[in-house]
Amino acid sequence: MAVATTQSLEELCINSIRFLAIDAVEKAKSGHPGLPMGAAPMAFVLWDRFMRFNPKNPKWFNRDRFVLSAGHGCMLQYALMYLTGYDSVTIDEIKQFRQWGSKTPGHPENFETPGVEVTTGPLGQGIANAVGLAIAEAHLAAKFNKPDLTLVDHYTYVILGDGCNMEGISGEACSLAGHLGLGKLIALYDDNHISIDGSTDIAFTEDVSKRFEAYGWHVLHVENGNTDLDAIHKAIAEAKSVTDRPSMIKITTTIGYGSPNKQNTAGVHGAALGGDEVKLTRENLGWNYEPFVVPEDALNHMRQAVERGASLEAEWNETWAQYKTKYAEEAALFERMLSGKLPENWDACLPTYKPEDKALATRKHSEICLNKIAEVLPELIGGSADLTHSNLTELECSGSFQKGSYENRNLHFGVREHAMGAICNGIALHGSGLIPYGATFLIFTDYMRNAIRLSALSHAGVIWVMTHDSVALGEDGPTHQPVETLASLRAIPQLTVLRPADGTETSGAYKVAVENAKRNRPTLIAFSRQNLPNLAGSSMAGVEKGAYAVVDCDGTPDLILIGTGSEVSLCVKAAEQLSDKKVRVVSMPSWELFEAQDAAYKESLLPKAVTKRLVVEAGVSMGWCKYMGSEGDIIAIDRFGASAPGNVCMEKFGFTVDNVVAKAKALLG
Amino acid sequence: MAVATTQSLEELCINSIRFLAIDAVEKAKSGHPGLPMGAAPMAFVLWDRFMRFNPKNPKWFNRDRFVLSAGHGCMLQYALMYLTGYDSVTIDEIKQFRQWGSKTPGHPENFETPGVEVTTGPLGQGIANAVGLAIAEAHLAAKFNKPDLTLVDHYTYVILGDGCNMEGISGEACSLAGHLGLGKLIALYDDNHISIDGSTDIAFTEDVSKRFEAYGWHVLHVENGNTDLDAIHKAIAEAKSVTDRPSMIKITTTIGYGSPNKQNTAGVHGAALGGDEVKLTRENLGWNYEPFVVPEDALNHMRQAVERGASLEAEWNETWAQYKTKYAEEAALFERMLSGKLPENWDACLPTYKPEDKALATRKHSEICLNKIAEVLPELIGGSADLTHSNLTELECSGSFQKGSYENRNLHFGVREHAMGAICNGIALHGSGLIPYGATFLIFTDYMRNAIRLSALSHAGVIWVMTHDSVALGEDGPTHQPVETLASLRAIPQLTVLRPADGTETSGAYKVAVENAKRNRPTLIAFSRQNLPNLAGSSMAGVEKGAYAVVDCDGTPDLILIGTGSEVSLCVKAAEQLSDKKVRVVSMPSWELFEAQDAAYKESLLPKAVTKRLVVEAGVSMGWCKYMGSEGDIIAIDRFGASAPGNVCMEKFGFTVDNVVAKAKALLG
Repeated sequence: MAVATTQSLEELCINSIRFLAIDAVEKAKSGHPGLPMGAAPMAFVLWDRFMRFNPKNPKWFNRDRFVLSAGHGCMLQYALMYLTGYDSVTIDEIKQFRQWGSKTPGHPENFETPGVEVTTGPLGQGIANAVGLAIAEAHLAAKFNKPDLTLVDHYTYVILGDGCNMEGISGEACSLAGHLGLGKLIALYDDNHISIDGSTDIAFTEDVSKRFEAYGWHVLHVENGNTDLDAIHKAIAEAKSVTDRPSMIKITTTIGYGSPNKQNTAGVHGAALGGDEVKLTRENLGWNYEPFVVPEDALNHMRQAVERGASLEAEWNETWAQYKTKYAEEAALFERMLSGKLPENWDACLPTYKPEDKALATRKHSEICLNKIAEVLPELIGGSADLTHSNLTELECSGSFQKGSYENRNLHFGVREHAMGAICNGIALHGSGLIPYGATFLIFTDYMRNAIRLSALSHAGVIWVMTHDSVALGEDGPTHQPVETLASLRAIPQLTVLRPADGTETSGAYKVAVENAKRNRPTLIAFSRQNLPNLAGSSMAGVEKGAYAVVDCDGTPDLILIGTGSEVSLCVKAAEQLSDKKVRVVSMPSWELFEAQDAAYKESLLPKAVTKRLVVEAGVSMGWCKYMGSEGDIIAIDRFGASAPGNVCMEKFGFTVDNVVAKAKALLG
Repeated sequence: MAVATTQSLEELCINSIRFLAIDAVEKAKSGHPGLPMGAAPMAFVLWDRFMRFNPKNPKWFNRDRFVLSAGHGCMLQYALMYLTGYDSVTIDEIKQFRQWGSKTPGHPENFETPGVEVTTGPLGQGIANAVGLAIAEAHLAAKFNKPDLTLVDHYTYVILGDGCNMEGISGEACSLAGHLGLGKLIALYDDNHISIDGSTDIAFTEDVSKRFEAYGWHVLHVENGNTDLDAIHKAIAEAKSVTDRPSMIKITTTIGYGSPNKQNTAGVHGAALGGDEVKLTRENLGWNYEPFVVPEDALNHMRQAVERGASLEAEWNETWAQYKTKYAEEAALFERMLSGKLPENWDACLPTYKPEDKALATRKHSEICLNKIAEVLPELIGGSADLTHSNLTELECSGSFQKGSYENRNLHFGVREHAMGAICNGIALHGSGLIPYGATFLIFTDYMRNAIRLSALSHAGVIWVMTHDSVALGEDGPTHQPVETLASLRAIPQLTVLRPADGTETSGAYKVAVENAKRNRPTLIAFSRQNLPNLAGSSMAGVEKGAYAVVDCDGTPDLILIGTGSEVSLCVKAAEQLSDKKVRVVSMPSWELFEAQDAAYKESLLPKAVTKRLVVEAGVSMGWCKYMGSEGDIIAIDRFGASAPGNVCMEKFGFTVDNVVAKAKALLG
């Protein structure tokens, strides 16, 4: 223990972080020690002096949020969580770094490790999530805080690296954050000049600080992030003092700081140092402790976070108690939102339709649903990536969320689909009961696919509103016409994909989506640009089952027509022309929901015995063989679309009643 | 015709552009008249005074390249092409704007309209394509130009809008372009303050010029882009004079210029003006011509492009003739590259392997192939999005493509997957025979999906090199482990997806990929991180068929095992343990190639009679039902992965010989 005395308490803490990372990566023979070694000082200052959190109640509402956007450095976060006393990250879990079933996976995963806020690793997602967290805080503060009682008041801190700053999604998100003036968003940029390929000189020589200034951020620079703790302290304090703009603190560090032969090289980015170098690093940093051993002084110091957190929470609870008595109505809403519950009969707001009701595009029905829901669910907040009046996603009961009007619920994301996705994930994962929705054309899910995937992986209860869902969108042509898109989204685990056929099914889709959101599950709904008739047999309950008979026959059908979305009405009309046969028409808005039904229901709807089935969907055939039956056929589009009026496209690609009837007759023989 | 005389020749030309766009959109009742109306002056100056092209030979090699990144304004380009005399865009085609089968689709499509260089519309793609075009020009110039003879020498011009500048992909591409100092890339930013949602004030208030300065660009501003032609002229001239940096000219315009009631509103962005407003606009701009009528003076003036282009080409042909005599060897290569041909027996460079050869990861075999190919094909150029030493994509025979070393063939894209994708498309669509490849982890195709899609749609002969292709990558965990990714890529039309099983199959995959590239078709190859044994039965010829028997039996099999990539060797080992049964093992590296085989081959490999089939692939099961057979089964991963050593993951998810044998026996009963 001799050496410890030669190190200040702060050095002890910082080196404890470094060596927990070094030792964990060494034991796992896998991981990224470099970032934790270099960023340990900034992380220590942030967690020890600035962050408000409660290790014993990681979900305490008013905690500051921390996002490690450079998720590969996750041992930095695990070390901090262990040192500050989170139950989820014990020393044994750290010894199990990157092993099956551990709470210390290879990147931060909120669904595995209580206390981790969001799931990062894919670069740039974290900083964009953080913008979402800051939007959620700003909105809730504007909504619930009172002149005499502040209920919502926390910062969102991010550590990001060069990789995050190279990704387009971070540029999109930070441009929007600057526009919105999110003053409680503070980004610490670990400027270490090294990415996996080596020095950033080979590909990344832009002036990052100037770019953030162009975005409207408050920008600071700490020149020596390795040892100048006071400079880091001053910078964060200054960042907190500027409340009308987000702050970016560029902190220049040395990746792998302390490793005599590997610091400042890509070699320390994604690989263990190796036994000899670990030994040299211990000598170099005067660290005589055994692997995974943390000096008592350091642990005692950092574990003060437990007491500090408890008193912070107690303080807030006091405010909350007063708030409940003085502002009962707002308190009731706040409490319900935090509980994840929905109001009784909330879904009574969702309209159903009769065939005589006006034919509308399902995107129009979506607009009606969103506005009905917005009235009963104040937690609904969202918008479009600059297609508000095409996606039809504006909430009439509210204004535009802008600097100075954070209480509003219409988010204008700009043409920034990928950031929109990650921001919606951040709003959902804020954990305050907000239900975010994000909208664009279905084809442009390609621009935000990783964010949609992460909503499913990280249990973010987002509603993805995707319009213009087939070649029927028409003249914009193949660059805008989705054909493979539905299939590619159905392939994502834990994502519920819905394609409603009419107004009633749209209501059913939103019932599923809102209830999913409250269970922390994302839902993607595909809507038509063109008008669709309201079907006599459509039902919300049917939608909840994923597939159901929208037209049925007596006894076992000779033929089953299966359609989704805009193609269901084609099948219904075709069935009328096949009245001499026993034909069932199955509307199948969601594969995932249907697969979740019991075997009996599935067999009753699609009996194995009925092998003559015709699937009709204006997209690729991929995956449909599962439901087609051994003697089945499909009308699909296994090619790219074309620029022409929507009705012409549908006709040219075979989506006509006549063609459905012809194909059906061919099957019936 | 009176009014015409009151307009200068330039005004006549500019208004001709405007009204061709207005009239075409009006007739189609669909399209975007706003941008063509506002950007007509800059486009006129560019095409009339600066651009070097030949309307009668749109593919003339040394033409300047023009990209309309704001592709929704395509009538601007069609008008320019008609006025300057391209055969592809006649006045009748303009009257057929956005109609089925016309040469004037809703967005610029290079595969539909000769003279259009790339396919744009999805915002931000065009500017990134342009970076690729500029990289191609810089590389070829460094490679072929001689002190006394300049063979390659052209500019790449782009018109982009606010939407393009909001997209992350444009930030990625422009940051890299600034780093590389691509001095012959000139971007004209149509700064009209309007996007679909309305004023950019609601979501986009950053300082774009300052951001481009931060990227290292030469930035200029034309304050009145509506009428100040001299300022536009001076700016472009100045941009051309700065050769060590790309130039961005911000040109402030009024969207829908000339429309009294709709200019400077979102109303003119994506909809026809309407009969009355068209009338008012004609009056306002003093335009007495009937719809689609262009004043002779204007047409005569702009059609001078035909003569100018012919003489430019003749000049260049003269240089080319001298070049051929003085530099026969380089000329031969240049000629072969332009011809799209491959050298005789080029594929002799691709190695094949025996079981006794060392087991390597297919990503390692990929590295070997890339380096062998690079030696025989000087047109191979590419790199990775900051994962060079994980993807193993470095060409040892060349250096890094950097400012001052453009002759090199290793591109360092930085952590910019989406830009990498669009840049590779641009390099391919430069039309000079270059074969670009772009690499990242398979999972991060999610970051660049739209660019991959556009490579397929727009016939860009790119090779997509995707490593770490399953949960077997291990510790990085579910954020990095692809499960649905292969399925989502197989869904894309016109894209060939391959997943080789060993060294020989990797060579087969590259044979397909290189030959596809020369036929302007993209290929995506998925490679393993982990080592795989070399199989006795694997063959390059088999890969070219998409699927083949890597192990076979006498007569009709009792069971067919179907695997891809790393799972094929599992199937082979399982077959050995099932020696008492007649078992065929099918390696199926590519669905698309197999589907392209004749019915006889398909039936012989997968006889309908053999209904007992077991598919083994470490990804989602989606789509495999097509090959499973009515009594088949599958070992797949229909969930997200987990962080653990790769071999542990594979075992936990059931990818063991024992499990394959057990499932097979269950099928055999």
